[in-house]
Amino acid sequence: LRIIKDGGIDLLQDEQIEDLDLKGLHLIQKKNGFRFGLDSVLLSHFTNVKKNAEVLDIGTGSGIIPILLSAKTHAKRIVGVEIQQIVADVAKRNVILNKLDSKVEIICHDIKNYDSIFKKNQFDVVTSNPPYMPIGKGIANPNDTKAISRHEITLDLESLIDVSASLLKQYGIFSIVHKPERLADIVCLMRMKKLEPKFLRFVYPRYGKKPSLILVQGVKNGNPYFKVNEPLYVFDINGQYTDDINVIYGKR
Amino acid sequence: LRIIKDGGIDLLQDEQIEDLDLKGLHLIQKKNGFRFGLDSVLLSHFTNVKKNAEVLDIGTGSGIIPILLSAKTHAKRIVGVEIQQIVADVAKRNVILNKLDSKVEIICHDIKNYDSIFKKNQFDVVTSNPPYMPIGKGIANPNDTKAISRHEITLDLESLIDVSASLLKQYGIFSIVHKPERLADIVCLMRMKKLEPKFLRFVYPRYGKKPSLILVQGVKNGNPYFKVNEPLYVFDINGQYTDDINVIYGKR
Repeated sequence: LRIIKDGGIDLLQDEQIEDLDLKGLHLIQKKNGFRFGLDSVLLSHFTNVKKNAEVLDIGTGSGIIPILLSAKTHAKRIVGVEIQQIVADVAKRNVILNKLDSKVEIICHDIKNYDSIFKKNQFDVVTSNPPYMPIGKGIANPNDTKAISRHEITLDLESLIDVSASLLKQYGIFSIVHKPERLADIVCLMRMKKLEPKFLRFVYPRYGKKPSLILVQGVKNGNPYFKVNEPLYVFDINGQYTDDINVIYGKR
Repeated sequence: LRIIKDGGIDLLQDEQIEDLDLKGLHLIQKKNGFRFGLDSVLLSHFTNVKKNAEVLDIGTGSGIIPILLSAKTHAKRIVGVEIQQIVADVAKRNVILNKLDSKVEIICHDIKNYDSIFKKNQFDVVTSNPPYMPIGKGIANPNDTKAISRHEITLDLESLIDVSASLLKQYGIFSIVHKPERLADIVCLMRMKKLEPKFLRFVYPRYGKKPSLILVQGVKNGNPYFKVNEPLYVFDINGQYTDDINVIYGKR
C-alpha cells in the first residue's frame, strides 16, 4: 500500500493511476483487472443528460461513467452501483481522487435487489456498459472479478433492462453500449419492457469494417420513433483518431 | 400501343424499356410510375438463395426482384405476387421480355389471402421490398398505383412478416429491404413471428452519412444468432460507385 500525496488516495500495489486525458480527470485502475475502454467514453458522450437529472449507472466498475458524466453534464446526482466489493472500492476512491464526492455516490449492491436502496421511478437517466458476453462462453472462473465484469454472471441483459425500466421515471432515458451481436436482443427487450428504443449509433473501428459497438438510447413509455444516427468512426484512413473522437475527448 | 420487335412485347404509351445494365436484363417501367431502385438490386444480392430453391417475392411490382434472382441464382422457381393488376401486367411482360417464363411466374393476388393459391410452409425463401411509408403519412390518393407501392395501404409490416412466416418452410429464409427507421419494428416483429433475425446490413450513401437503407435476413425457427455485416457504401468520396456496388452490378 502506498499513498499518493495529491488527495491522499490509497493505492494498492496492483493498481495505477491513469490520466483520462479528458477534463483533468484521473482513474485508478487494476493493472491486470478489467479496464475501462472507449465504450464507456462513447456512452457518456451519447447519453442525453438534462440539467439537474438524477442518474444511475448500473455495473459502474471503476466509476468511469459517473465520473465522465459529472464532468460533461449538469446532472444533480449520479449514483454508480457495482456488485463487486473490491471493484466498488476502487470506484469510491476514484470519486475522491477526482473530488466529485458531492455529486457522485458509489454503492456496492446487487441491483436486482434495488428496492432496498432505491424507490421505483426514481431516476431520470439509467446508463450501463454491461458485460458483453453471455454466461457459458469461455468462463474460466466465475468468481474472478474480471470474469464478472465481462460475462453476464450476476446480471443478464433481460434483468438489466427490467430493473432499469422499474427505476426510471416516466419518459426517463435508458442508454446502453454493447456489441452489435446483441442488437436484436436489446431492441426487442427494450420494447418489451416499455423502454421504447429511439436512437441507435454504430461505432466502426474504421471505414469499411464491421461495427465494433452499438449505442442504444430509449425512453420509458415513449412513442415508437426510431432513428439511426450517423456512424461513428474511431480511426480515419491514416490510422489517426477521427475528428468525431477528438471532439468526444474534448480535443477539438 | 406499339410493338417492340425483339420478343414482340406490347408496350403502352406511358411505358419505356430500360436496360438494367446487368446480365443483359431489361425492364419495362411506367414513365411516371413507381420505379425500381437500387434497393431491389441490393436485396437480390443480399438474399441467400440455394440451388433449386422455391422463392416468393411479395409485392413484386415490375418483377425486378424475381428477374434479378433468376439471373443471379440457381433457384428452381420464383413467384412474384403483386396486388395491383396494372402493375402485375407490367411484371408479366417483363418476364416474357427477358425470356424467363419457364422459371418466373407473376400472380396478381392479395397475399393476405395466400391460402387460395399457396400451401403453408411451401417456400424456401421469401423476399420483399415493401412500401416504406406507414399509412397516413402524406397520401394524396389511396387509389393511386404509385401510392400503393409507396405506402402500407394494402399490406402493413406486421401482416407481411406474418404471412411470410406462414409460407416459409422450416429454416426458410426471409429477406427484406427497408428504411433504417423501421429497424426496431422489423427485428421485433420477425422475432415475434419466429423469423429469427440473423443478418443485418446497413447501406450508406457515402462515408460519414446516415444509413439510407437496411437489409435484414432471418431464418424461420432459427436459433438466436445476430450478425451485423460490413457496411455497404454506395458512393466513394469522389462520388463514383464503390467497388462493392460495381461487384453487385457485375462490373468487377
